[in-house]
Formats: sequence, C-alpha cells, structure tokens
Amino acid sequence: MTAELINRQDLEFLLFDVLDAERLTARDRYSDFGRETISSILDTAEHVAREYFAPYNQKGDANEPSFDGARVKLIPEMQPAWDAIADAGFLAAHHDHEQGGMQMPEIVHKAAMSYFYAANIGFAAYPFLTIGAANLIESFGNADQKARFLLPMLDGRFSGTMALTEPGQGSALADIKTMAEPAADGSYRLKGQKMFISAGDHDLTQNIVHMVLAKIKGAPAGVKGISLFICPKFLVDDAGRPTTRNDVKLAGLLHKMGYRQTSSTVLSFGEEDACVGYLIGEPHRGLEYMFQMMNEARIGVALGAASLGYVGYRYSLNYARERPQGRSPANKDPNSPQIMIIGHADVRRMLLAQKTYAEGALALCLMACALVDDQNTADDLSAREHAGMLLDFLTPVVKTWSSEYGLKANELAIQVLGGSGYIREYPVEQYYRDNRLNPIHEGATGIHGLDLQGRKMTMKNMALFRTFVGELDCVIAEAAGLEVSGGFARNLQEARDRLEAVSLSLVAAMQQDAERGLANATVYLDFVGRIVAAWVWLRQAMAAERKLVAGGLSADETNFLRGKLQAARYMYDWELPQIVPQAKILTDVNRVCYDMEDGWF
Amino acid sequence: MTAELINRQDLEFLLFDVLDAERLTARDRYSDFGRETISSILDTAEHVAREYFAPYNQKGDANEPSFDGARVKLIPEMQPAWDAIADAGFLAAHHDHEQGGMQMPEIVHKAAMSYFYAANIGFAAYPFLTIGAANLIESFGNADQKARFLLPMLDGRFSGTMALTEPGQGSALADIKTMAEPAADGSYRLKGQKMFISAGDHDLTQNIVHMVLAKIKGAPAGVKGISLFICPKFLVDDAGRPTTRNDVKLAGLLHKMGYRQTSSTVLSFGEEDACVGYLIGEPHRGLEYMFQMMNEARIGVALGAASLGYVGYRYSLNYARERPQGRSPANKDPNSPQIMIIGHADVRRMLLAQKTYAEGALALCLMACALVDDQNTADDLSAREHAGMLLDFLTPVVKTWSSEYGLKANELAIQVLGGSGYIREYPVEQYYRDNRLNPIHEGATGIHGLDLQGRKMTMKNMALFRTFVGELDCVIAEAAGLEVSGGFARNLQEARDRLEAVSLSLVAAMQQDAERGLANATVYLDFVGRIVAAWVWLRQAMAAERKLVAGGLSADETNFLRGKLQAARYMYDWELPQIVPQAKILTDVNRVCYDMEDGWF
Repeated sequence: MTAELINRQDLEFLLFDVLDAERLTARDRYSDFGRETISSILDTAEHVAREYFAPYNQKGDANEPSFDGARVKLIPEMQPAWDAIADAGFLAAHHDHEQGGMQMPEIVHKAAMSYFYAANIGFAAYPFLTIGAANLIESFGNADQKARFLLPMLDGRFSGTMALTEPGQGSALADIKTMAEPAADGSYRLKGQKMFISAGDHDLTQNIVHMVLAKIKGAPAGVKGISLFICPKFLVDDAGRPTTRNDVKLAGLLHKMGYRQTSSTVLSFGEEDACVGYLIGEPHRGLEYMFQMMNEARIGVALGAASLGYVGYRYSLNYARERPQGRSPANKDPNSPQIMIIGHADVRRMLLAQKTYAEGALALCLMACALVDDQNTADDLSAREHAGMLLDFLTPVVKTWSSEYGLKANELAIQVLGGSGYIREYPVEQYYRDNRLNPIHEGATGIHGLDLQGRKMTMKNMALFRTFVGELDCVIAEAAGLEVSGGFARNLQEARDRLEAVSLSLVAAMQQDAERGLANATVYLDFVGRIVAAWVWLRQAMAAERKLVAGGLSADETNFLRGKLQAARYMYDWELPQIVPQAKILTDVNRVCYDMEDGWF
Repeated sequence: MTAELINRQDLEFLLFDVLDAERLTARDRYSDFGRETISSILDTAEHVAREYFAPYNQKGDANEPSFDGARVKLIPEMQPAWDAIADAGFLAAHHDHEQGGMQMPEIVHKAAMSYFYAANIGFAAYPFLTIGAANLIESFGNADQKARFLLPMLDGRFSGTMALTEPGQGSALADIKTMAEPAADGSYRLKGQKMFISAGDHDLTQNIVHMVLAKIKGAPAGVKGISLFICPKFLVDDAGRPTTRNDVKLAGLLHKMGYRQTSSTVLSFGEEDACVGYLIGEPHRGLEYMFQMMNEARIGVALGAASLGYVGYRYSLNYARERPQGRSPANKDPNSPQIMIIGHADVRRMLLAQKTYAEGALALCLMACALVDDQNTADDLSAREHAGMLLDFLTPVVKTWSSEYGLKANELAIQVLGGSGYIREYPVEQYYRDNRLNPIHEGATGIHGLDLQGRKMTMKNMALFRTFVGELDCVIAEAAGLEVSGGFARNLQEARDRLEAVSLSLVAAMQQDAERGLANATVYLDFVGRIVAAWVWLRQAMAAERKLVAGGLSADETNFLRGKLQAARYMYDWELPQIVPQAKILTDVNRVCYDMEDGWF
C-alpha cells in the first residue's frame, strides 16, 4: 500500500468552496490565478512531490545526514528533489515577476507546499527554510544584499537557514550571546555558537545563507539589543558567485527522533575571528524583522504538522478498509467471515478524530494564508488591518492546535494499525516521530500560550481579541438559517460567550498578579484552540451543507460533503465540550501548578 | 546527567504507608517478608538494574538485534544482564521454596521489577516474558513438563515467549490458523506462522520455550477451539538438556520504533512438518489458560509503562532544576539573572502532570499486585473472591490508564527539555518511543474498552462493578474526617454517582443494541480510568495527610508528602472534571462515530 498525499478534493473544497480563493483574481497582482491556473499549480506540486519526494521519505529517515569532513551529505536522491522543486518555481513563486517569481498568492503557494510536507517533511525543510530566509532579505535587505543573496536563493543555487537558538538558550532569545563587531568595510565580524540550526550544512547548494541573530557590541540588554545579519557559508563576489569560505564551521551534528533527513547542526561563527556578516536593516531591530519570518514559519510548521496528520490519517484509513479482523459485537458466530476493521465503531472513532484534526488543521492553515494575502493586498487599508489583527491573534493557535492535534492524529494512525503501526515496515510510526518536533520548534507550546494570553489577547486594548470574536459572531449569524450548521452555531455561541467571560476574568487576574494570572496560559491556548477549530469546522460545514442543499451532486460528492458534516459534528460533540472544565480552571485562576514547589517534587 | 531510576521513597511510601505490604507477613507463605527483607530485595534489584541494565539502554536502542544466519544476536552486554537478574533470583522469586523460589509476594516482586523496566525496558522484556511463560507451565503443565521446561526457566538456562498473534490476526485470536495434529508419541505436530513474537529468537539462553496457541484438527471454530502448547526451540531430553533443533524457524525480524533490544520475530512452525509441541492441560482450553498469563502480562505492561513514565518524569525534573532560561513574566529587567526553568509555572504544570500520571500508575499497578496476592493467599475464601472480582474489573483500566498516561508523561518530558528532548543525545525521546508500544500490545486500548464495558462491567449481574463501587464508598467514608482528603472525597462521591448512572444507562443501551451500545466503549474506559486514578490518588493523599497530621517528620519527608497531596489535587482539579463531558457522550449513546460511513471518509 503506497501512501496517499493530499486528496485534491479536500484542497479544492477549501480553496474554492470555503475560502473562495478565486476572489483574489480581482486584485491586479493575482489576476492570473483563476481556478484553472490554481489547479495546474497543484498538479505540478503533486507531481514533483510524488516523483521526487515521496519515494525517498523512508530512505531519508533511515540514513541520517553525515559529515565527511568537508560537508554534510544527504542521501543522493535529495539533489534531484531540490532541483525539481526549484525548477518548478516553488522557491520563488510568491515573489514579483521581476525577480523571476509568479506573484502567487500565499494561499495557493501553501496549498501546493502541503504536497511536499506530506511526501517528505524531512527534506521539505530545506525549501521551507530557504523560502523563509529569502522573504526576510526581500523585506529588509538592501539592493546589494538582494542581488548577491536573494536572487540565487530564488532560483535554488543558494539555500537559507534561520540561526537563532544558542547552546543554553532555547526560547529565551533575549539572552543570546553571539556578538557582532563592526569592521572597516561596513560589514561585521560575528562570534558565537548557534545550535539546532536546521539545514545548517548540506551538499545541495553552492552556498548556504544563514540569517543570524547577534548583538552588536555595546547594544542594549535584552531583546532590544538584537540585530539581524546575513552570514553566508561562502563569501560572494559582486556577480553573486561564491568565492572563499567564510569562518562558519560545523561544530557538530545532532541526532533527532524524526525529521532525520533535515541536518540539525551546531555552528561556530568566528572561531578564527574572521566570520563576515552583513547587517540587515537597522541595528537592534533584528528580532522585529525575524518575527516576520517566525510568523510565516509558524504557519509553515503548522501546515507541516497538518500534512503529516493528514497522510497518517489517509494511510490508516486505507489500511482499515483492507484489513479483515473480528466481527460485530452482536455477531457471535465464529464461522461467519471477518469484517474489515473500519466496520468496528472504535476504529471509525480513531479515523474520524484524525479526519477532524488533520482536515481541520489544513483548513486553519489555509485560512491563515488567506489572511496573509488580505493583510498584504486587500483593497482598502481597513481590510488589511482587520486581516492583520485577526492573523496576529490566531498565529499562536494555528501553530499550536495544528501541531498538537496533528501529532494526536499520528498517534491514532499507529493505533489503527496496531502492531503494524509500531514497526518501520509501515510509514505511520515515522509520521509520528516526525510530527513530535512540531510542538517544539518555532516556539514551544508553552511559549505560544504566554504569547496568546499575555500579549495577543490584551493587545491594543483587546482589539485583536474583539476582531476574532467579531468573526465568530459573523459566522454564527451566517449559519443561523441552515439546519445542521445552525445547530453547530448555537453551540459556538455558547462557546463564544464563555470565551469572552474567561478572557475578561484573565485580564483582571493578570492585572492583579502577572505571574499567577498567566500561570495557566497553556490551558487558555488549548481552550481558544478548540473554539477556533470549532469555528473552522463551522465554516466548512456551512460550505458543505449549502452544496448539499443546492443538490445536483454525484454520489461521490455527496459522500464527501456528508463526511465534512460528520467531522464537524465530531468536533462539536466530542472536542468542543471539553472547554467547560478548562473554563473552570481558567476562571478559578487555578493555582495547583503555580503553587507547586520545587522541593515537593 | 544520568537517569534516576525509581525513587526508593516512592516505593516505600506505596508499600508501607499506602498498601501495608507488611500485613502479608501474617500469612505463612510470606512470613519472611518484613520491612527489612523487602528493603534488601529492593536494594538488590536496584543494584542489578543500575549496574547491568541502565548503562546499556541507549546502546541497545541504537543496535537492534540482527540475525547471523543461526541465531539472533543481542548486544553483548545483555548476557551479563541476563545472568545477573537470573542469579539474583528474580526469575523464580515468587515460586515455592521447593522449586528454588523465594515465595515472594507479587507486590514485592513487581516493586523490584520496576527497577528493571525503568533501567532498560527493551531488555527487561526477556525476563518479563520468561516469568510469564513459566507461570503458565507452573499453573497448567504436568510434572514432566515442569521438570523439563519450568525448572530451567526458573534458573535462567531457558527463556520463554508467548506466541499468540499471527500474520493477519492481531486482536482476533478466534481466527488463528496454526494447526496441531496428534502424533503417535502423545505429542503434537504444529504448523503455522506467528508474528510479533517478542524475544522469539536471541542468544541469551540455551533454549527458548514458546507458549503457542494452535487449533487441534477438528476443534470447534472460534475461541473455544484453541489449545495451548509448549514448543521449544530445541527438544529436551529427560534430564532437561537441549538436544536436537525443533522445526521452529525464524522467518524474519521486525523493526520497531522503540523497545528495540527486544527482538520482534516472525516464526514458522512446522515448515518441514516436524515441529513438536506438547499440549498443556486439556484440549480447547488454551485461551482460558493463556488469559492467566495475559492478565499478569497486562499488569506487567502497565508497570513497564508506569516505570517509563516515571524515569522520564525524573529526568525532566532534574533537567528543569538545572537549566536556566528566561525570567518571570513579572520581571522586565533583561539584566537580571535567568531563572531555572522549574521557576516557570508552565514547566511545573508539565512536571506535576507527569508526577500525577507516573506515580499514579505505579500506585495503581502495585495495588493490582496486592489484589493478586489477596486473590491467591488471603485468609478466607470471601476475601479471595472479593480481591479476584476487583482485580478482574480493574485489569483493563490498570493496563490502559497506565500505558496511555505513561505515554503522555513521556510526551511531556520531551516538551520540558524542548529541542534537547527531541534528540537522541538525551534519553527522553527513547522513553517516548519505547512507551508508544504499551497501548498496543497485550490488548490494544480499544479491546480493553470492549472488555471493560462489554464484559467486566456487566459480568455476574454487575457484581464486579459493585465491588469496585463498594471500594470507592469505603475510601470516601474513610477520608471524610480528613481536612484535605475529605475535600477530594466529596469530589469522588460525585464521580462515583456519575459512574453508577452512566454504567446503568450503558447496560440499558447494550440490551437494546449491543453494537451501538458498545460503540463508545473506549470513552467509557477512559472515564472509568479517571475515576480509578482519582481513587488511587485519594488513597495516597490519605496516607500522606495522616503522616503530616501525626507530625515528627524531617523537612524532606514533609516536602515529599506535600508533593503527594499536590499531585492528588492536580488529579482532582485538572483530570477528574473531564469525566463530565465524557459522561454526556456516554449517556447520550452519542452516535457520531457509530454513524460514520466508510464512504464519507
């Protein structure tokens, strides 16, 4: 049984029926992106993912990158995969025509990228990071930097990384120790060590462009003293050709549980005091710049988690349809034939939960991409601001809900397969190992809890929060006239009221005592996550129900849409009600964890 | 940082303060097992686990067993480990003196075994399976079988396996295809294939004794036609010496995500029509016999899961105490020193949840062992029956709650370490991979849901269920007079009433429609699991509170007991309330998963 990637029916339902991606053609920048164009882009992505990525997913897992003394070597099949994704234009797709891009909307680009994540997440990290690093240079680099580094990244000659974390500093960027000293030629000399740098060394490209956070000597303490530098593995001449080796050295490889084809490196900058870096934008504004990339990266991580959840779901579904075992509890005749395991209600539970998590996360990620498009290119300023505020509020939820529930989906995929799910002869255990990374990188879950409750919810006098509540109100009102979705909307109304009450009580608690008021922020994050997921599923249910009511569908289409309604019902009956005990913990400002003392453990 | 195994303080608190293991000395069989003896047994187990098991846990994971054409080879360090555990007497510990055993109570034996599970679960599977197979022969084998197979297993010359599963048949034992044909000498000739046979081949022992389920030609269909056979790798002469090779062949090795030092095999029986097997007990009663071993094995798996949860918890706790990062949300001064991450409330949440799961599961497993002891050796018959009924009711919960929440604990241990938790340079990712097996083998979670709701709860006119409810009532009454525990008891009273209402409604639903009524049995299993865990924590809280009230404690003891009370509080405030939405799904006989159709996926 080969693994399915993303079902086109799902992507088209989301793009065209739920999110109306075609509306973007009204904008000059995107006028080319009608339904046909989008379909052919998805065809290309699917083809490249299927031919060049998927066949080597297990091999890449079994053969971790190794260092041969000069470079880190990937399995040889990764080079054609890199060339194929670059040649198909996906590294530059969203950039301007003048830069060789296609001006592709974010929602289309990311829908296409989901194929690569589903096919081979351990390799997809290379294009993913290159795209992110290129976006940073595009946004904040100067013309010279763009000519020398950006253009070769867009066509795949160079690749990129994000070098934030240091040994001893994970989530606490305020305390990084890498230093930058100005040199006579206007560049800087970097010195320090970075750890967990994904794709930090490999043999795919002529050059590797590290985006490095460092502190310029004499900078203020904390996050306000961090600057952003381009630091290439090879220096580059004016024509964009790599020349001499820069003083960036591989200090070691780390060995991950999953994502194994992504090299994870410790890098030493400036061991010989000769590491050249180029300041991007203004001094001390590095973290602000990096946040653009991190927010993109968070949606990207979420999409990767959703895609892994998705392929595990489809694999276990197909397995459950083909694997005979046992009989209905009502059938006591041992001579009767066995049924396929999908006939057992508990197996359907595990499949339906996976469907709800994976398709819900995919929908949530593409909704976030639609907000990115609106933030960048909506017709009027207020629409852009509205999209930006909603996106800011949702980003921690998109990242966390997708990665936590994508992982849960993979856990269930293993359980559907039973013993076979636990062995490397089947693909689902790898998805699970791969996906375990996603609640950790680009901000661990706990960090996003603090971000959501401590920053986003209260920000601008709760304007971001109000924007989200306003969206809930719109969708609830819109669903009122529909039979099935109207029922969900009444449940969502209750949840919305609870969200408001809980959030206001937390604002009061934080005002009284910031530390104690924030102590249960991770619970708040999951509480909001369930409401967001219910909102996402209501939007999908409405689209499905309207099509069913309109009629004229094939049996296959009808089945597909009924499945969406059933997943929405699972979300509302099984997942949403858990907000009630969460709300109690939150409004009580429950102090069990807060009060726990070191000595009591 | 080396990994801690099991904290002796925890074991002693459970054995002496909560479960009063010393009361067993009143029974003739156990008169030797006073506190001092028990302590010295734990010393021995800890020593052997620390010296021979723990140092090779990572090496065993990185070097899976391989087949050299003749035998499956483990890493060489496993031979001294096997010899050490056998020499220390742990394979035979619970057997009679006449057999070279120590007549050790189950609760003491399993408390000792927890050290081996914590130190190296992938290797501990060999003694674990040998003990289980030996118990089967002890219970149902004849004198000749005991002389030839049991005695060499007790002293470690032979090892044992359970050979139940077949390719294509996992949980559905009714449909096994391995056949047994009577031979002229009174033995049988077996023919068939078995899969996922743990420890099915290796180089530790002179012989491997497989306990094989097969159907005698002409047997009834289904579970009533299954017989149990001894099938050794080497035939054995009258003096118990291995002679010629039996016709059992290694057909292949499977490659697991974790538990990697445990060889996982496909075995072919009778490829050359010469596979000798010896019937145990009577024909067609094999499954009944095997259930004894499976029930033991279920508690053993649960204890393994608890032990893995436990070591992950302790490792992440020690890490959190030593790792500086970030500051309190109330402290905005970037020049102030960083705090250890245990100072962050969310890290304490992750540690406290782990503590509650791991110590709760350990307590639950040892309570189950105490029931085994009472079932076997309580003074009067009614006490034995009472223990047996309670044990039967609890077994699916012990197995599932421990393995599901042990795994969750390991997931949280990774999260506490962040990126470091995800790499093989630290031990916690291995614990997580290892523990992912436990909700699968010895009955996957869904199977135990059907067992609990469909069999145990209704069995004997609900007498088993009533026995458990009676236990809840006793503990609730006992706690009433205590200040802190009395508060927990009031919550448990509510849960107990809900348990009764939900269970009765399910009985009615199953009578109406067995299949639909059982559709949400896995939810029932977790629902009961939370109540059982709350009961376990109340028993621990009472013991802790009484000691605190009695006073005369060192600061360390006081801290330890306060930690127990705080974990109980976490159980009651954070975990138990989730039964409310579960109760609604159950009493509604929610049909979302039941109704989901294959075509809608």
